[in-house]
Amino acid sequence: MSRDTLGVAMLGYAFMGKAHSRALLALQHLDVPVRPELVSISGRNPEGVERAREEWGWTEAITDWREQVADERVGLFDNGGPNVVHAEPTIAAARAGKHVVCEKPLGLTADESYEMWQEAERAGVHHLCGFNYRFVPAVRLARELLEAGELGEVVHFRARYLQSWGWDADPELWRFDPRQAGTGAIGDLGAHIIDLARYLVGEVTAVSARVRTIVAGREVDDHFVATVEFENGVAGTLEASRLARGRINSNAFEVNGSNGSLAFDIERLNELEVADTKSFRRVLVTEPTHPFMRYWWPPGHIVGWGDTFIHEFGHMLEAIAGEHEVPPHGANFEDGYRCSEVTEAILRSADSGRREEVRYR
Amino acid sequence: MSRDTLGVAMLGYAFMGKAHSRALLALQHLDVPVRPELVSISGRNPEGVERAREEWGWTEAITDWREQVADERVGLFDNGGPNVVHAEPTIAAARAGKHVVCEKPLGLTADESYEMWQEAERAGVHHLCGFNYRFVPAVRLARELLEAGELGEVVHFRARYLQSWGWDADPELWRFDPRQAGTGAIGDLGAHIIDLARYLVGEVTAVSARVRTIVAGREVDDHFVATVEFENGVAGTLEASRLARGRINSNAFEVNGSNGSLAFDIERLNELEVADTKSFRRVLVTEPTHPFMRYWWPPGHIVGWGDTFIHEFGHMLEAIAGEHEVPPHGANFEDGYRCSEVTEAILRSADSGRREEVRYR
Amino acid sequence: MSRDTLGVAMLGYAFMGKAHSRALLALQHLDVPVRPELVSISGRNPEGVERAREEWGWTEAITDWREQVADERVGLFDNGGPNVVHAEPTIAAARAGKHVVCEKPLGLTADESYEMWQEAERAGVHHLCGFNYRFVPAVRLARELLEAGELGEVVHFRARYLQSWGWDADPELWRFDPRQAGTGAIGDLGAHIIDLARYLVGEVTAVSARVRTIVAGREVDDHFVATVEFENGVAGTLEASRLARGRINSNAFEVNGSNGSLAFDIERLNELEVADTKSFRRVLVTEPTHPFMRYWWPPGHIVGWGDTFIHEFGHMLEAIAGEHEVPPHGANFEDGYRCSEVTEAILRSADSGRREEVRYR
Amino acid sequence: MSRDTLGVAMLGYAFMGKAHSRALLALQHLDVPVRPELVSISGRNPEGVERAREEWGWTEAITDWREQVADERVGLFDNGGPNVVHAEPTIAAARAGKHVVCEKPLGLTADESYEMWQEAERAGVHHLCGFNYRFVPAVRLARELLEAGELGEVVHFRARYLQSWGWDADPELWRFDPRQAGTGAIGDLGAHIIDLARYLVGEVTAVSARVRTIVAGREVDDHFVATVEFENGVAGTLEASRLARGRINSNAFEVNGSNGSLAFDIERLNELEVADTKSFRRVLVTEPTHPFMRYWWPPGHIVGWGDTFIHEFGHMLEAIAGEHEVPPHGANFEDGYRCSEVTEAILRSADSGRREEVRYR
Repeated sequence: MSRDTLGVAMLGYAFMGKAHSRALLALQHLDVPVRPELVSISGRNPEGVERAREEWGWTEAITDWREQVADERVGLFDNGGPNVVHAEPTIAAARAGKHVVCEKPLGLTADESYEMWQEAERAGVHHLCGFNYRFVPAVRLARELLEAGELGEVVHFRARYLQSWGWDADPELWRFDPRQAGTGAIGDLGAHIIDLARYLVGEVTAVSARVRTIVAGREVDDHFVATVEFENGVAGTLEASRLARGRINSNAFEVNGSNGSLAFDIERLNELEVADTKSFRRVLVTEPTHPFMRYWWPPGHIVGWGDTFIHEFGHMLEAIAGEHEVPPHGANFEDGYRCSEVTEAILRSADSGRREEVRYR
Repeated sequence: MSRDTLGVAMLGYAFMGKAHSRALLALQHLDVPVRPELVSISGRNPEGVERAREEWGWTEAITDWREQVADERVGLFDNGGPNVVHAEPTIAAARAGKHVVCEKPLGLTADESYEMWQEAERAGVHHLCGFNYRFVPAVRLARELLEAGELGEVVHFRARYLQSWGWDADPELWRFDPRQAGTGAIGDLGAHIIDLARYLVGEVTAVSARVRTIVAGREVDDHFVATVEFENGVAGTLEASRLARGRINSNAFEVNGSNGSLAFDIERLNELEVADTKSFRRVLVTEPTHPFMRYWWPPGHIVGWGDTFIHEFGHMLEAIAGEHEVPPHGANFEDGYRCSEVTEAILRSADSGRREEVRYR
Repeated sequence: MSRDTLGVAMLGYAFMGKAHSRALLALQHLDVPVRPELVSISGRNPEGVERAREEWGWTEAITDWREQVADERVGLFDNGGPNVVHAEPTIAAARAGKHVVCEKPLGLTADESYEMWQEAERAGVHHLCGFNYRFVPAVRLARELLEAGELGEVVHFRARYLQSWGWDADPELWRFDPRQAGTGAIGDLGAHIIDLARYLVGEVTAVSARVRTIVAGREVDDHFVATVEFENGVAGTLEASRLARGRINSNAFEVNGSNGSLAFDIERLNELEVADTKSFRRVLVTEPTHPFMRYWWPPGHIVGWGDTFIHEFGHMLEAIAGEHEVPPHGANFEDGYRCSEVTEAILRSADSGRREEVRYR
Repeated sequence: MSRDTLGVAMLGYAFMGKAHSRALLALQHLDVPVRPELVSISGRNPEGVERAREEWGWTEAITDWREQVADERVGLFDNGGPNVVHAEPTIAAARAGKHVVCEKPLGLTADESYEMWQEAERAGVHHLCGFNYRFVPAVRLARELLEAGELGEVVHFRARYLQSWGWDADPELWRFDPRQAGTGAIGDLGAHIIDLARYLVGEVTAVSARVRTIVAGREVDDHFVATVEFENGVAGTLEASRLARGRINSNAFEVNGSNGSLAFDIERLNELEVADTKSFRRVLVTEPTHPFMRYWWPPGHIVGWGDTFIHEFGHMLEAIAGEHEVPPHGANFEDGYRCSEVTEAILRSADSGRREEVRYR
């Protein structure tokens, strides 16, 4: 436990600021090779950022992220701000030699995401894009079962991410402003399931999509549906909506293979439904042998959504300590970029009314 | 109970022959305005059809359906044979003035389905296409809730029909022969959810689809995925597969509206999940006020899949007795035809790689 | 199919009259060795019984069951009347050499049930007590798994039968009249789970119970709770209620053994939850190899509650044809009697405030 | 956030040591009126306690709890050690004026529990018994709905706590040693559901129970079943087992009232099933208005089992700050004592074969 420490600077102090801060605090007392020190938190609103600093114990509150990038104490720059401030600060931090974490979606556009990835690579730093659902124990177990060939040849995939808050939401939210958010449900929810599709099945090659804005006065999409094709021939569907009454946070997928199937829903994030050739078994993913369980409790004592960030940042700290690479189990900026390309193919297809191939560079 | 009787002639003695025969027998003792008499059953194999005659009490076993069409005792011709023998006998029966029931998919092609519809209309007979899932009590309740405006404005729809027997099936089955079946999962399973989409949401105007044949040596599709657009602007997805391990007969749909949602799966056919603006409620559709429950038991005593045919044929007998029309609650041949057009649009889209509009005549 | 026929006479024309009549009609066209002929139906109310006769196709309607007992055409006497008329007509029929079916609970008291059993045995006829839940495919499968030792040594059992109609029910119902019904929830619902306990686990030796009448003005019990001990050392609980809001017809049990567990609920009567040493698997009990499926459809096409009576009467007809005995898979009058003794032990225990041993003769 | 601080000393460094430590660390950065300082952790094994100190950031590691009791920096003594060391250290701490938290079951016997309660009361300190399931948001919501009269008059209750690790467990575990644990499943699992029964329904007045030790060589109970009576007339069942294959940590209860019902299972700890007079609704207890959600995330982002300790210790810190009393929403030592009396009544009843009244002093 005489561990090295790593200074962390965070941009953003809202939802993600809270989730990341609490995960970093918890990791100070968990078995990871590097102990995170909470050096500074930044944001535009001085009162907000000071309140966040005090609450989560960051040493300094800052209104200009450039100070963080210039700070020698900082080894990891963590960007949890609105989408519009993902690229510039993250690139600057990478150029300054900081390891970087950036929330999803990576850039506002595929071009921006590509640049972020290239810059991070060029800088030789570790980079992680915040697809925290890769760090749900049941999702990691799904991947492990797929890698072990338990499902045989995968043939179909479907994923849907359904929420309902879009009907009654405050129209002033940054998530509804195309300048700050880029897209609506696509970038917010769709990005997660695009990443899971890639993590679980393989590279996405083409999509056919339909995107809709339904609520009057809204400038970003509320909902999309898409068919999706993978490099390995698998066909599937992707759907996301902020307007699905009764679904609070239902990020659900299903994988069908020649020897079995897997089904999952984040509303029951400790459960993985595992089928062999006949029937589904409900696996409570809390056994000592299950992913990430070394952090936790005896079987049957479930983890929460916030805990996925502990797994994610633990993974990043291990990568920084040289124990492994970020991918494949964490998404790096290449994954963030590739997700952006799928997103753009979805938008192109909605415009063209055609199946669109994903144009990776 | 001094009811009129109606002579019925059936073509087909396999799965559908059994389901229809048993429903007709049950309807002899249920409160419907016309009592069905089982006049004759026909099929190509003399032994098979004689066995069926004896088992289900049909008066005669016949190997040429033309005799049935010419039989004056017959008022209703019920076609439950393979898809390839849907059109000719059904049209002949209609021309002979018989009311007609035909299993889905109606014709092998949209042209054939159109002709069947036109001929039945021209003959002035009642015609019903065997989309028996309209006669699941929970599905009818879903429609009633939608008609009553309980969900507000519908915005999204998704349906999937997943089975798994395709992995291990006898390759000699007529369902795998394109000459007898036309298509695979599309006509067999997809037709059901296309019809439910039309029944619950509205007319389908365009699709983008991906169709796959996966099992070596198979000549019909195993699986398709599609996005679907409706006249009223709703967007959704349709999926069907015979290769979804762990799914035995999972015909599941979800409708999301501005005030609520509905979710259903035929594997639990007595349950409808009904959401208001917050959460889903599990409604056991067995209350006296629920659809079709006048035939059945006190609350909580569930009905089975076979019972949907009792509801369907009861509906047809009432239509023949002049109590109502077949549509909208039963599918008529127009519905069968329109389903065929959606099917063809799916096939066209899979070929063209484009969104294809459905070309209704 | 050149089968022998068996004349059936039925007493009762309400809920059970309907369920039995429809099962017998269906069995005329199913593969059982004896074809049932519906000779006569009887009941006190001439209009009611005539309506039933006409609806279900019984040849004669009768107001005095003695005529049925004396009728030479009758080979099977089926008693589905209120509990108070179970004993006398059934015993008379057995003495007249008729095979007998009697609904549960067998007699109003254990004495009465014992006499019914003894008389039926003495007469040498086949006797079946209407515990139709033994004929749910999933329940039979549960028994088969237990017999095959799949669960290892059974250690715990729990069953509860919860309904909610008791809150709002018509007070004039015979089920609330102690003279006609004997008990309330105990005989109506409790009898079913006592029988399942015996069928699945073994002989019940002692109980400790608490019985309550809650609704004002009611003269029979609404609810009971009990611990239960079995000859083989297993301990468990039994509970039944007519006052459990939200539970419509929830007859649910769970068996825990050293190598696995089983869980079931009649509201989902086609599903059996089967655990090995780790997790529960949802088995849809509709495979060709599953019990009773020879009567039905391809996998995934579920059966209904009413269909359990087809299985039950099919079993009785096979017994009459000499193919097997009624027990252990059907309950005979000994089972009906033993259930009555458990019932009385529950009542004794509720009175005495002690654990009471079951006093089998 | 210029909060008072409170020095905490903890006894125990295993499962509960970990759960409490992590909750206290998290509470350093959450909105509670007092900031906990982790002064010292104690245990018999010097290496183990030092490792725990280092991991969770306790200032000192100690092998004699008496030093903690004498430590002026300590304001709260938290006892998470084996049951056998609950009484003496906790009483000593209370006498020394420390507020006290003690894990459940409170004492090894009702006498011991009573003494602990009396001493804590006499000392005038705040005392909390670690029934953390009162701090599950869904459980608190259940209580709120009951208090608000949403269920009308409660009539039935059932709870069962089923695990399966007992089949394969290390026989050397302190939980199997009657000298350290007192009882087996009763104190470990049963205590939780006894407390929930009291929290949700009311005071327990009598029980009839059956207790079994099944695994060869085991000296504590594996399993019990009981009927239970409440002061307000409600009747119910309690069951706990360490031998229920397929159940990992299933702490499930159901409350039935005249106007509705509630059902819960800790394996899905963010969900409460809420019935009105008809059907059950699945409430995801993650809305801003739901209990404890001020600590957490937007709707649908679930909390974990470990988070219940954050709620519990937050509650205790608020009590210490004078914001409220520990009961009724937290269990105090009186609740711990009363639970012990129910436990002893269960043991007495298992011995006597009689219904036993609970003998509160």
